[in-house]
Amino acid sequence: MKAVGLIAEYNPFHNGHLYHLREAQRLTGADLVVVILSGNYVQRGVPALVDKWSRAEMALAGGAAIVVELPFAFAVQPAHLFARGAVQLLADLGVSEIVFGAETPMLDFMGLAQKARQSLSQSIHFTRQYNQTYATQFNAVIAMETGVKLTDPNDLLGFAYANAVLALGLPAAKMRLRPLQRLAANYDDATLPLSGSIASATAIRAAFMQKDPQLKHYIPAETAAILEMQAPGTLRWEQQWFEALKLKVLTTPVVELDKIYQLDGGLAYRLKRLLEQDSTLDYAAFMTKFKSKRYTYTRLQRTLLYTVLNVTKIEMLQALKNPYLRVLGCDSCGRLYLKQQRKQLTLPIVGRVTHQDVQGRLQLDFKVGKVYQYFGRTEVQRRTTQDTGRIPLYIERM
Amino acid sequence: MKAVGLIAEYNPFHNGHLYHLREAQRLTGADLVVVILSGNYVQRGVPALVDKWSRAEMALAGGAAIVVELPFAFAVQPAHLFARGAVQLLADLGVSEIVFGAETPMLDFMGLAQKARQSLSQSIHFTRQYNQTYATQFNAVIAMETGVKLTDPNDLLGFAYANAVLALGLPAAKMRLRPLQRLAANYDDATLPLSGSIASATAIRAAFMQKDPQLKHYIPAETAAILEMQAPGTLRWEQQWFEALKLKVLTTPVVELDKIYQLDGGLAYRLKRLLEQDSTLDYAAFMTKFKSKRYTYTRLQRTLLYTVLNVTKIEMLQALKNPYLRVLGCDSCGRLYLKQQRKQLTLPIVGRVTHQDVQGRLQLDFKVGKVYQYFGRTEVQRRTTQDTGRIPLYIERM
Repeated sequence: MKAVGLIAEYNPFHNGHLYHLREAQRLTGADLVVVILSGNYVQRGVPALVDKWSRAEMALAGGAAIVVELPFAFAVQPAHLFARGAVQLLADLGVSEIVFGAETPMLDFMGLAQKARQSLSQSIHFTRQYNQTYATQFNAVIAMETGVKLTDPNDLLGFAYANAVLALGLPAAKMRLRPLQRLAANYDDATLPLSGSIASATAIRAAFMQKDPQLKHYIPAETAAILEMQAPGTLRWEQQWFEALKLKVLTTPVVELDKIYQLDGGLAYRLKRLLEQDSTLDYAAFMTKFKSKRYTYTRLQRTLLYTVLNVTKIEMLQALKNPYLRVLGCDSCGRLYLKQQRKQLTLPIVGRVTHQDVQGRLQLDFKVGKVYQYFGRTEVQRRTTQDTGRIPLYIERM
Repeated sequence: MKAVGLIAEYNPFHNGHLYHLREAQRLTGADLVVVILSGNYVQRGVPALVDKWSRAEMALAGGAAIVVELPFAFAVQPAHLFARGAVQLLADLGVSEIVFGAETPMLDFMGLAQKARQSLSQSIHFTRQYNQTYATQFNAVIAMETGVKLTDPNDLLGFAYANAVLALGLPAAKMRLRPLQRLAANYDDATLPLSGSIASATAIRAAFMQKDPQLKHYIPAETAAILEMQAPGTLRWEQQWFEALKLKVLTTPVVELDKIYQLDGGLAYRLKRLLEQDSTLDYAAFMTKFKSKRYTYTRLQRTLLYTVLNVTKIEMLQALKNPYLRVLGCDSCGRLYLKQQRKQLTLPIVGRVTHQDVQGRLQLDFKVGKVYQYFGRTEVQRRTTQDTGRIPLYIERM
């Protein structure tokens, strides 16, 4: 059986994702689609609109055969770690082809990554300047070394996948990358387009919040039904997470805050001083003060999420070293495929989460899942266990 | 100059307190009244209705000459530590007489304490049973040894003052205790009485929250004016502190929770398990599950406050060993008295709080003050600095 891999957040699953999923299978002639899906938090450092189970269900309804969770330690990270985690899981599952959306699909991503890798290893250009973000400088060096300027987010992610393939030492035959032209919607579009059936996830989330009746034209019926069940509740997260951050920072000494992942380079001290000086700031006003040229907005947002979740350096490094295959759901074809692959897997596979899992390799994901559940955007989600006691979703296809 | 000492929470200052303050001065013929006032949190483990500055102002308006803060490490503790801290501050300030309200003022509190102390040191009765609270067992032993059954809260507090005098080794001539009959109101009365001008602080707080127009008959005009300025806002604390506790517990491993003051004997583990099992519990439902025969409700409530404020064992023990005299306010007479006493003081006196204070002996109070300010029950309180940058209140009396 041939499997094609997708890497996604599905926040939420919409018509663009459905198109991408079907095209991936068509283009590659694969028997099944394996999706690596971010868990309850997405890459830019915020919780997903609905929980991982709901999003896995949407993906299965859209035709995915297997949905595996990308653990928090990889999912809420810059592109290179996000990509490394996802590609590693796919490779371990015996997937030898990844289809990803790109703004510029005609680029030779693998070639670019190889060239960049060679150049960077010899480069004298990449001495870090502290008045620019890492991403800016990295891209400048890539542009200088390869002559190609990557600016669009999906192109950059594609480049990160290619780099991950090289970093993991996967032979070209073991992992092929196939960029697919992204359709109309820009990632950042805030509103639904006037025509067509594809909109950005950002626009779809906004439409969902505003109960825009046009939403149904841009999402599959199953997504609509699942979102319906998770009708927007009190949106506790938006209201409360920044307040939670303030309290955490006010009650924790700098020496303890320093243990939080990425809260280094004086960030812990600055964070504490800022909030001690004025704890009435709202998030936007705070970020204006907290932001510096040295870090991107997203990097800081992730760091603040780690702080609220109390994700320590030790905890994160431990989790990064111990990936696992957490199956959120599969269909009959996916189940068969997993059975076939089982013997070749090098990573542990997790179906029902045990007490040992929670004490061991799932510790971080269990913790952040409990907080997601606590902050649960809806009463349904608040009552839903995210880990222990859950078994993978299963759908029988006719 | 002869000073008489009072120990109070003034939450808020009402006509009963005014009567007590005046009677104390009249009975003892003192030139001035020194008040030891709990800071922003009161003994039973909750924040005060209005901040320490507002309450100090009420006390000064009511005739107090000096108001000194009882640090958090003593203020939010069972009676014996509360009393020890307050009596030590008064003794250091050269106060040789304490007047306190009692339900049974004819009791010889010092005599009782001496007898109890002797008996307890020889007693074989006080082997702790874990199916009863400490307080229950202690009182049973006292009753057995002295023949006097102390049940009313102010009598118990008086007994704790007497014990503190003994524990601090103060000669009888250096510290005299004078119980004063408490007037009508019971501590726990939840509503304003039908007649008279004295009500319990509990009833007064409830009337304040409900904007009961009858309130003005039970509090001095100055208290009313100060409460007016601190008009009940969103009451963020009640809404948020238990939520803050949940998040703290969900994100903190048991081994870290174990470092919280009094969160021992398996309490950290039970707390975490309870909230992991169901984070949708409200406070009352949670406490029903958390309460055991071993600990009083108030002890657990204080422990949960320590948890939210992240007060560690180390931090608390450090603070208990390092009391100080934080002057919140004085009048002209009080200022003169402090000048006279200055040379004899053994404890450091703190007027304007410096950066060194905040890093040093005031660390705990600064931290909990920041949280009080953050949770500030009103917008006014949220913007008001509790420590750094404040100078003691001063009133010139004609």
